[in-house]
Amino acid sequence: MPDPLLVRAARLEQVERTPVWYMRQAGRSLPEYRAIRAQHDLFAICRQPELCAEVTLQPVHRHGVDAAVIYSDIVLPVTGMGVSVNLVEGVGPVVDAPLRTAGDLRRLRPLHPQEALPWVLDSIRLVRAALEPERAVVGFVGGPFTVAGYLIEGGPSRAFAETKRCMYAEPRFWHGLMERLTAAFEAYAVAQVGAGADLIQVFDSWVGVLSAADYHEFVAPYSARILDAVVAPTIHFATGATHLLTELRAAGGDVLGLDWRVPLGQGWQAVGHDRGVQGNLEPALLLGPFARVAREADRILADAGRRPGHIFNLGHGVLPATDPDVLGLLREHVHERTASR
Amino acid sequence: MPDPLLVRAARLEQVERTPVWYMRQAGRSLPEYRAIRAQHDLFAICRQPELCAEVTLQPVHRHGVDAAVIYSDIVLPVTGMGVSVNLVEGVGPVVDAPLRTAGDLRRLRPLHPQEALPWVLDSIRLVRAALEPERAVVGFVGGPFTVAGYLIEGGPSRAFAETKRCMYAEPRFWHGLMERLTAAFEAYAVAQVGAGADLIQVFDSWVGVLSAADYHEFVAPYSARILDAVVAPTIHFATGATHLLTELRAAGGDVLGLDWRVPLGQGWQAVGHDRGVQGNLEPALLLGPFARVAREADRILADAGRRPGHIFNLGHGVLPATDPDVLGLLREHVHERTASR
Repeated sequence: MPDPLLVRAARLEQVERTPVWYMRQAGRSLPEYRAIRAQHDLFAICRQPELCAEVTLQPVHRHGVDAAVIYSDIVLPVTGMGVSVNLVEGVGPVVDAPLRTAGDLRRLRPLHPQEALPWVLDSIRLVRAALEPERAVVGFVGGPFTVAGYLIEGGPSRAFAETKRCMYAEPRFWHGLMERLTAAFEAYAVAQVGAGADLIQVFDSWVGVLSAADYHEFVAPYSARILDAVVAPTIHFATGATHLLTELRAAGGDVLGLDWRVPLGQGWQAVGHDRGVQGNLEPALLLGPFARVAREADRILADAGRRPGHIFNLGHGVLPATDPDVLGLLREHVHERTASR
Repeated sequence: MPDPLLVRAARLEQVERTPVWYMRQAGRSLPEYRAIRAQHDLFAICRQPELCAEVTLQPVHRHGVDAAVIYSDIVLPVTGMGVSVNLVEGVGPVVDAPLRTAGDLRRLRPLHPQEALPWVLDSIRLVRAALEPERAVVGFVGGPFTVAGYLIEGGPSRAFAETKRCMYAEPRFWHGLMERLTAAFEAYAVAQVGAGADLIQVFDSWVGVLSAADYHEFVAPYSARILDAVVAPTIHFATGATHLLTELRAAGGDVLGLDWRVPLGQGWQAVGHDRGVQGNLEPALLLGPFARVAREADRILADAGRRPGHIFNLGHGVLPATDPDVLGLLREHVHERTASR
C-alpha cells in the first residue's frame, strides 16, 4: 500500500496529481458542522472523539480533499498545562490570567498529552481508521511565538507590543516560556504522530510581526526543536512572513506554507527547491466569482509547474463566509488540471 | 532661508544630519497630552485649532524632533463626506453604517476641505506659524485601501474579507468608492499643502494584506493619483508590505516608508536609491532596554550609510506604553551619530 498522496508530495516524490486540502476546512462554513456547533462549543467537540472525528471527516466527504485535518485549535494544548482559555465568538482565544513575569511560569505545568488530552489522540485514531489509506491525517501544533503571544497579550493582538516587550526586556521570562511551550508542543506533536497523524503542520500564524533578526534570536531555536522532534513530514506555516522565508526554512519543515501575499514561484525560489511548498490561493477570492478563482489557481499551478513538492492549499484558513461548494469545485479543478494521463 | 531639513532630505539633498520624527508622536504616550485628552475626545481636539496645534507641538518641544505631524486620524476626512465614524477606545474607528453596495455610494458627498474641515487647515496654519523654519509640518491622508477597509468592514479588521469580496465581486461599488475617496484625499492633501504643510504622508497602513497583483489592479491607480496631485514632497507608507515595495514605489512617493520587518538597506535596495526611505526602528523596542534601541538605531544608520534621502523614524506609530523620554534620547542619539562635523 503506498503512503498517502500528501505524504509522498511532502517528501518531494513525483505524484500522480497535486494534493489538495484547506486550512480550517473542518468547521466554519459547513452547514452540517454548524448544526453540531449549535449544540457544542469548540473545546467540547474536541473532548468527544466521535464528534470530533465526524467534524474532521465532514469536509473530506464533501470536498473530496486529500487530507483530513484534525478539528482543534492551536491554544488547546495550553489548557492541558493549567491555563484557562476561552474561545470567544468574534474575538478569538481569551486567556483569563495572562502570563507576564517569570513568576507566572510556575502556573504552567508540563504537558503529558496522553493524560491531559487523550481525546485528541482518540480522535486521531478514529479518523485514521475511518479514512481511506490514500488520504492523509494532518495533525498540528501552534508555533511557539503565536501561542506565547496569546498567553502574554491575553487575547488576539495586532501589534504584540507586550509580547515583544517581554522578548526584549524579560529574557528570563521569555526564554522560560518558550522552553515550556517547546517541550509541550514537541510532546504533543510526537503523540499525534503516535496516534496516527501522517503529517504535522506547525502554525506560527502571527510570527510575521517580527523582523528576521528578532525571529532568529527569539523564536527560531524553539521552532527548530519542535520541527526536529517530529518523525513524520512537517509543514511550517506563517502568514505575512514573506520577509522571513529563509529564516523559516532554516528553522525547518519539509514543506513551507506560503500565504497568498507572495507569488508561489517566487516564494518557492526563496525557500529553495529542495523543500516543498504549500499554498497559496487568497482565501477571500473564494467569496467572489469562480472564474477568478480558477484563473488564480491556474496561475499557481503554472508557477509550481508540477515540480515535486507542491501541496495545493489556500494562503490561510477558509473564511467563515465561504460557500462550501466552491471548495469542492476548486479541489476538482486542481485535480483535473494536474492529473497525470 | 533654507527649506526645512525634512524637506531637503525628502528631495534627496545631502543634509547636515539625518532628520528624525515619529509617526503618532503627537498624543498617545505624552502625559501633557493625556491631560488634554481626559477633557476632549480626538475629533473634538481636531475641531479646536488652538488645542490641536498645542497637541501637535508638544512632542516637538519635548523630543526635539525635526517635524510636527498634525494631530488627526486618517478617518477624519470621511466625517466631512457624510459618514458617521466613532473612535472607540481600545477598538479603533467604528463606522455606524458600513458601505457595501453601489447604492451606498450615494451617502458619500464630495469633500470640500475648506468648508467641511476648515479647522484642520487652521491648525496647520497655527503650527506652521509657531514652528521654527528649519522644522517641517507633516500633513497626512489615509491610503484609499485602508480607509475603504474601515468603511466596508465597519471597523478594524485582520482579514479584510468583506473588503476583498467587494473588490472581486462588486467592481462597480469598489471602483466607485475608490474614485470618491481618491478625489476627496487629493483635495484634502492639496488643501493641507495650501495651508502650510511641507510634506504629505500617505498612510496606507493595512494594504499589506493584498498580493502585489491585487494591489496593482485594485489600489495602485488611486494611490498614484493622490500622490501625483501633491506638489510638496510625499512619503508613501504601508506596514507588512515588504512584498509590495516595488508596487508602492511605482505608485509614487518621493520617500517610501518602511516598516521594521525589512532591514533598511534591503528595503532601500528594493525601492531604488533614486527614492528616499523613511524608517524603520521596531516601535516595541522602545519598551525595552535603551542599549538595544541604540544598537538597532546604529544598525539602521549603518544601513543608510548617510546616503541622501534617509529620514529616521519608527517602523510604525509610537506605541501607547512608550516612555516619552526614550523618544527624546533616541532623537538625540540619531542626531549625534549623523551630524556632519
